[in-house]
Amino acid sequence: MTGGGAMRPILDMNAYRPGDSRTDSVERRLANLGAASVLFYRQPIEMAEAAGAWMVAKDGTRYLDFYNNVPSVGHCHPRVVAAVSEQIARLNIHTRYVVDVVDDYLERLKATLPPELENVVMTCSGSEANDLAIRVARAATGGTGIIVTETAYHGNTALVTEASPSARRRGSLPDWVIAVPPPSCAHHGTDIAGGFLASIEAALAEFARRGIRPAALLVDTIFSSDGIFADPAGFLRPAAAAVRAAGGRIIADEVQPGFARTGDAFWGFGRHGLAPDMVTMGKPMGNGFPMAALAARPADLAAFCEGTGYFNTFGGNPVAAAAGRAVLEVIEEEDLQGNALRVGAGLMEQLQSVAARDDRIAGLRGAGLFIGLDLAAPGGGRPDPDLTVRVIDGMRARGVLIGAAGRHGATLKIRPPLCLGADEAGIFAGALEAALREARG
Amino acid sequence: MTGGGAMRPILDMNAYRPGDSRTDSVERRLANLGAASVLFYRQPIEMAEAAGAWMVAKDGTRYLDFYNNVPSVGHCHPRVVAAVSEQIARLNIHTRYVVDVVDDYLERLKATLPPELENVVMTCSGSEANDLAIRVARAATGGTGIIVTETAYHGNTALVTEASPSARRRGSLPDWVIAVPPPSCAHHGTDIAGGFLASIEAALAEFARRGIRPAALLVDTIFSSDGIFADPAGFLRPAAAAVRAAGGRIIADEVQPGFARTGDAFWGFGRHGLAPDMVTMGKPMGNGFPMAALAARPADLAAFCEGTGYFNTFGGNPVAAAAGRAVLEVIEEEDLQGNALRVGAGLMEQLQSVAARDDRIAGLRGAGLFIGLDLAAPGGGRPDPDLTVRVIDGMRARGVLIGAAGRHGATLKIRPPLCLGADEAGIFAGALEAALREARG
Repeated sequence: MTGGGAMRPILDMNAYRPGDSRTDSVERRLANLGAASVLFYRQPIEMAEAAGAWMVAKDGTRYLDFYNNVPSVGHCHPRVVAAVSEQIARLNIHTRYVVDVVDDYLERLKATLPPELENVVMTCSGSEANDLAIRVARAATGGTGIIVTETAYHGNTALVTEASPSARRRGSLPDWVIAVPPPSCAHHGTDIAGGFLASIEAALAEFARRGIRPAALLVDTIFSSDGIFADPAGFLRPAAAAVRAAGGRIIADEVQPGFARTGDAFWGFGRHGLAPDMVTMGKPMGNGFPMAALAARPADLAAFCEGTGYFNTFGGNPVAAAAGRAVLEVIEEEDLQGNALRVGAGLMEQLQSVAARDDRIAGLRGAGLFIGLDLAAPGGGRPDPDLTVRVIDGMRARGVLIGAAGRHGATLKIRPPLCLGADEAGIFAGALEAALREARG
Repeated sequence: MTGGGAMRPILDMNAYRPGDSRTDSVERRLANLGAASVLFYRQPIEMAEAAGAWMVAKDGTRYLDFYNNVPSVGHCHPRVVAAVSEQIARLNIHTRYVVDVVDDYLERLKATLPPELENVVMTCSGSEANDLAIRVARAATGGTGIIVTETAYHGNTALVTEASPSARRRGSLPDWVIAVPPPSCAHHGTDIAGGFLASIEAALAEFARRGIRPAALLVDTIFSSDGIFADPAGFLRPAAAAVRAAGGRIIADEVQPGFARTGDAFWGFGRHGLAPDMVTMGKPMGNGFPMAALAARPADLAAFCEGTGYFNTFGGNPVAAAAGRAVLEVIEEEDLQGNALRVGAGLMEQLQSVAARDDRIAGLRGAGLFIGLDLAAPGGGRPDPDLTVRVIDGMRARGVLIGAAGRHGATLKIRPPLCLGADEAGIFAGALEAALREARG
């Protein structure tokens, strides 16, 4: 357990740095956003349009997008575009009135969730959803302690930043947060479920020592920013049971794995046969329309609302509902969950071939269209973030967008749109092999 | 100064209560949103569409909208609808790439702001903007104390809820928050500027006694939830000077008054001849598209970013920028600021006539199309929230939507779309007089 957190910057990519050469458009961006500016690549891309799995820069360069997991059913999907365009011309208002499309959507969404999570609070961002989930867990349990993983990222509000070790650039975690190692073989060897359970038990014991009652285990169920850990399926269950036995809730942060990305289930927790006490969701929910949500049990939500009035002006507006409904329909009608499973499996095979020919690929794992690929010194040496940066740049030069994750920033985070075709998977594998070859020089 | 806050519910309307009779659609809504459900009126409205200043219920009833200040340039304004529909079909992505429309928008927005506020951080909600503003103020000043007004509402995140007395249903304010009385004649008599300054000085002295350094004065510059206080113009300046002298920043929360509503200026702080250190904005910014922002000085923002990586996935996406740009264009081309001034003045005159004939109207004040009207026992008696509820219901029966604000919930909060016509102002005044007459019986 790392009480101090990993303290690495939030950037999961080869980012622009202040001293880099700049075009007029980059100059303009830096003048507008200042220190909060986060630009991909040391020579940032001016983007103009996008469709399906492809993005097109202003200079006409086409990029195959293996990075962006918000436009999950494909960039600018015509069905989502039509739903938003139609509803925003008709009615766009808060949830203080009853609007059919909002409840239509919520019922469809709830049908994908454990039945006891009967209430859904719509918010604008995953950050708002996690901020609320922590408070609901606290009100429901009377505890305050939150367990997260050591490179976790759960959002940008004050409360959630304190529970996001990867967003903190200095200082130690507050005493109500304990960060545990992720469920990886690097930490736990072959017994990942047992090792992860032991970490959780140690965290619970540490909370007891501090005199802090646990409120929740808050986990991204595919551990994206920790480096993507999906196997063995089920490893979350013993850890969850230990947290519940100590009086805490399980909050599944599905902002990354949710909405069919892992192929085998609609939600990341489904892979583990786990029914969480709360589910937060965001990014792909509206394919880019700003929307997110917390699903919870009525009694837990009521415990929070007794003390605090909660209202979210934009949350649950009918345009968001229309976008969200279109996303659910597209996932179902285009069988994107099945596609993620099939194309993901094909992609994994191709990446295994590349790995068999390159001993700098030290690890390869994932589920569906969410794959992590570790880069390290040859023959199982140390994680190699510099090689990772060269590969990210080399792939960009070959027209493929990709980012990195993990404690060392040496894991390629592979998460293309769910509409990916087998041919596009092949383009990625080819570009990766070429970029790796070039990076050897 | 009220350390404990006002502790009234967040609802500023005659809300549905659990025991009220319910239609199937209300039943469905309560099942979906649970305890977080907040429905207007004890017999909620099923809303179907809206345009300009009018909303249409599913049963065909038309309502003149004097409540909703998000669709500020008019419900479903075709220019904003077109901008969103066009951009969402072309590209909808985060700010890690450079996209022209984003910087175009930010430059236009910055042109309305004090020139030293060079950086704008785009967020999804006013809550996120205020959550960030408090942290930026703390990083920039080294202080932690925040001064707010006693019925203030600044948003729904954990941090901002602690600084929003009106959202808290129980418990006392944390020691880093002091709530002062709003700048009203009820509290300060004829010397509002002097009285408000004295309240701020008392709060600063109390922070000194607690050993807490002040970080900021956070105020809605028209004090919406406190009851709408606009006059005399300039009363904020001495208070702001005192906070600055004590090392704190001034954060103008423009979520309510911003974007031309007060008629005399584009921002609420403009009325007071004040240049804030930070400006937060939200609701009307995208006419309903979920978007908000914090504008700050580069050095203040940099002080925060040194310690914390901040990134907002949906914040500053090109669709939001297109919506925001269309809103600015519509305000300018339709001269909505001028309209707010002219139609607001005409509306005020008509309301003064109504008040001259009804001694239960105990106060009437505002700026442009943001007007507060106090209801009280006849002849200057106590604030009358029951009468207010009857008037709100009576106006609904006459096809006019209106809500209440203020510590006692006895101030009608009058804030129609900025495109309001003189004829519509007349409809409102007529419906108010009729509802007041009926409520006398």
